[in-house]
Amino acid sequence: MKRIKIKELLATAPTGQPVAVHGWVRSFRNSQFISINDGSTLQNLQAVVELNALGEDTLKRITTGACISVSGDLVASLGKGQAVEVKVKNLEILGDCDPEAYPLQLKNRPSLEYLREIAHLRSRTNTFSAVMRVRHAMAFAVHKFFNDRGFYYIHTPVITGSDAEGAGAMFRVTTLDPAKPPLDDQGHIDYKEDFFGRETNLTVSGQLEGETYALALGEIYTFGPTFRAENSNTTRHLAEFWMIEPEMAFYDIQDNMQLAQDFLQFLTRYALDNCAEDLEFLNKRALEEDQAKPQEQRSELTLIDRLKFVAENDFQRLSYTEAIDILRNSNPNKKKKFQFLIDEWGTDLQSEHERYLVEKHFKKPVILYNYPANIKSFYMRQNEDGKTVAAMDVLFPGIGEIIGGSQREERYDRLVKRVKELGLPEKDLWWYLELRKYGSAPHSGFGLGFERLILFVTGMTNIRDVIPFPRYPGNAEF
Amino acid sequence: MKRIKIKELLATAPTGQPVAVHGWVRSFRNSQFISINDGSTLQNLQAVVELNALGEDTLKRITTGACISVSGDLVASLGKGQAVEVKVKNLEILGDCDPEAYPLQLKNRPSLEYLREIAHLRSRTNTFSAVMRVRHAMAFAVHKFFNDRGFYYIHTPVITGSDAEGAGAMFRVTTLDPAKPPLDDQGHIDYKEDFFGRETNLTVSGQLEGETYALALGEIYTFGPTFRAENSNTTRHLAEFWMIEPEMAFYDIQDNMQLAQDFLQFLTRYALDNCAEDLEFLNKRALEEDQAKPQEQRSELTLIDRLKFVAENDFQRLSYTEAIDILRNSNPNKKKKFQFLIDEWGTDLQSEHERYLVEKHFKKPVILYNYPANIKSFYMRQNEDGKTVAAMDVLFPGIGEIIGGSQREERYDRLVKRVKELGLPEKDLWWYLELRKYGSAPHSGFGLGFERLILFVTGMTNIRDVIPFPRYPGNAEF
Repeated sequence: MKRIKIKELLATAPTGQPVAVHGWVRSFRNSQFISINDGSTLQNLQAVVELNALGEDTLKRITTGACISVSGDLVASLGKGQAVEVKVKNLEILGDCDPEAYPLQLKNRPSLEYLREIAHLRSRTNTFSAVMRVRHAMAFAVHKFFNDRGFYYIHTPVITGSDAEGAGAMFRVTTLDPAKPPLDDQGHIDYKEDFFGRETNLTVSGQLEGETYALALGEIYTFGPTFRAENSNTTRHLAEFWMIEPEMAFYDIQDNMQLAQDFLQFLTRYALDNCAEDLEFLNKRALEEDQAKPQEQRSELTLIDRLKFVAENDFQRLSYTEAIDILRNSNPNKKKKFQFLIDEWGTDLQSEHERYLVEKHFKKPVILYNYPANIKSFYMRQNEDGKTVAAMDVLFPGIGEIIGGSQREERYDRLVKRVKELGLPEKDLWWYLELRKYGSAPHSGFGLGFERLILFVTGMTNIRDVIPFPRYPGNAEF
Repeated sequence: MKRIKIKELLATAPTGQPVAVHGWVRSFRNSQFISINDGSTLQNLQAVVELNALGEDTLKRITTGACISVSGDLVASLGKGQAVEVKVKNLEILGDCDPEAYPLQLKNRPSLEYLREIAHLRSRTNTFSAVMRVRHAMAFAVHKFFNDRGFYYIHTPVITGSDAEGAGAMFRVTTLDPAKPPLDDQGHIDYKEDFFGRETNLTVSGQLEGETYALALGEIYTFGPTFRAENSNTTRHLAEFWMIEPEMAFYDIQDNMQLAQDFLQFLTRYALDNCAEDLEFLNKRALEEDQAKPQEQRSELTLIDRLKFVAENDFQRLSYTEAIDILRNSNPNKKKKFQFLIDEWGTDLQSEHERYLVEKHFKKPVILYNYPANIKSFYMRQNEDGKTVAAMDVLFPGIGEIIGGSQREERYDRLVKRVKELGLPEKDLWWYLELRKYGSAPHSGFGLGFERLILFVTGMTNIRDVIPFPRYPGNAEF
């Protein structure tokens, strides 16, 4: 008999028809009621074994984590918590699971920290299976959003010869013998002998390459892994993470802000519409976690309320300069409650300031734009005031910056001047600069850290728990 | 006025309404007819300038490659080749393009080799824009196929601590000082000092990590970059390429073959249905390329015919043993036309044999299965005959192997025995082996090289021309 997935089966009317289900035992009560999960849904299927129908040997092997195949009739359930159940006629053990050794069995409620050490098994828990199903839904929604709007998905390179963007410390990629690297005349490493004939690194961003395609195909996006070799052991940083970077010809900073809002609202709406069951579970989980905190650290809104709030409300747009005014005159600034007091125009905003604007002042997502040029990247478009650039950051409750972007400097002379001012390697940027020489166009783009999005949508609080196998200093297991 | 994309505009009835278009000049004839392309489609829009309406200065700047903005009324076209055109009222030069310097202008018909050197601009040619639009469509179709079937997309890690699969030479990822790496007591490189506290490499496959999720969520797939540090300068290999790897619990080798066929047929059908215009162009391109070849090397089918053929015909399934019989008794074997003659059971098949089976004998895609264990990977399920494994390869005309996969060995003892026989690092595989200890399940999976697929669907012949920025020995430019 063909196997049916539990998700499908639970949506079926119980007319007594025979069905076959494969999955993993979540629990086995009274030598009679087996809860089976097959990963297709958070819900378990109840399979009911008739008393004395199975031999003692088989009964003993129905342990938590064991993989079994059952077939029998789908009938209405008399028990609470499920509409249907399977009256087992045949049961086969596909894979045993020794309860004395099974790591998920040994601890009653394993901590998230412990589960990171067994990342090959943690996907079998309710929390991680829910997170990863939501992660999948969000990845699909990203592609759907852009495909529906006529954007083209571009795979920008992971191994790169240029460290032009300067977005952060990089990992070197090499095939040279580490013990005896070839040296040149001056005793330096001779990268001409390396695989690519030059020094290469893992990319920190696909933006610059993405721009080359925006100026040919119009609207494009990347969605790929990016890397930072920074020694930060925080709940918000990974050494390897996935980034989404749309780049659009003929968009100015206002168009860019609108796209960012449309995008984030589409994603949160998609999650609400397509992941209701998993979100309910994660909502409850987050609530429980929240209730363990002191009153003043608890969230004002539940996870699902936050998602609805983002999906349904316009984001507040305001300039950096307006934000500084608000912050300077705010209570926490006047009462010196901020760790970093806001005094002068030109200072970079800290997380505490962003959170104040989003969570206290406007009580909605905020898009800040027109930042001081000095605290932003070389490729951002210079405004006519001579001191700001057309940068934008989208700030979310709880998360802070979720999107960073800008209109790009499309004027060759201004861009070259800026590259020189900052002492960037003009030689390595030849191709990026040429985009401004041959049919340049106004254009914009932004970057969304995918794991930051998943943190927001799942209510998880450590970024290591929203990616299958996290990479951070000291950890590349699995 | 809001910009409209040319793709949309060309599907609009010419009722004289005002429109605004932005794009790049492809040609400018008689100081009157501008062909504009904006990347949304292969087609150009004709914009008609009234004689003497623009100053000499502006006219001079309307050169191939320049970026312009035009607005005017959308009217029926009197000229051949287009139904509508824009009667220009306003024209603005957004970005000049010096025809004396523009690389795409300097050569009349730039070669594919030359275009690789200007990969930041080649996306502005018809060929590369068509290839990249098809590539996008195929990437989207991959996600749609799996999402529709309830598979979950899993991002497996790019940086990996294990070289367990042994699929090929690897790139080392490091932050150690290359000139003065830290050494341990014995004078070896001390990887404990490296970023991850161990030696790490770029992944060659996400399969092993993918299996951990298949045994939790049921059906999953990966779609990410993979790497080979092999010094192969061929038209079929890249150092960095994208791979799709589905892994499914409860699938045997037959289910696996069916999924592979369904998948490839869905993708080719999707291309035919969604990329007609680009495929027509690429079809013509491939025909021209073909006609430059000697008669006997030309394809029997055109590109579009090949796609239809794959979409509409069942794939031929046969065992390796049957294939050897056919090959041994084939004319080219008996007449010693094969470079590698087929004599004994157990030998690996070469490209010439695969092509014979696909292109001459069966004249359709072929799935070979049950290969000798000795020529396949350790994780493939051992058949009861004691000498073959439940491996499968899908062979395509012109391409050869496009998919490789297998049922995975789910039996702990057999797998451990094989790992020991092959001298693989059992210690590094602890988590992979544990999957067989705790609720193991029959499962299968396969890998599709995304660029191989794009070669097949676009009719391009060099793999460096179907990825935006190819990485190969000696090249990591851009």
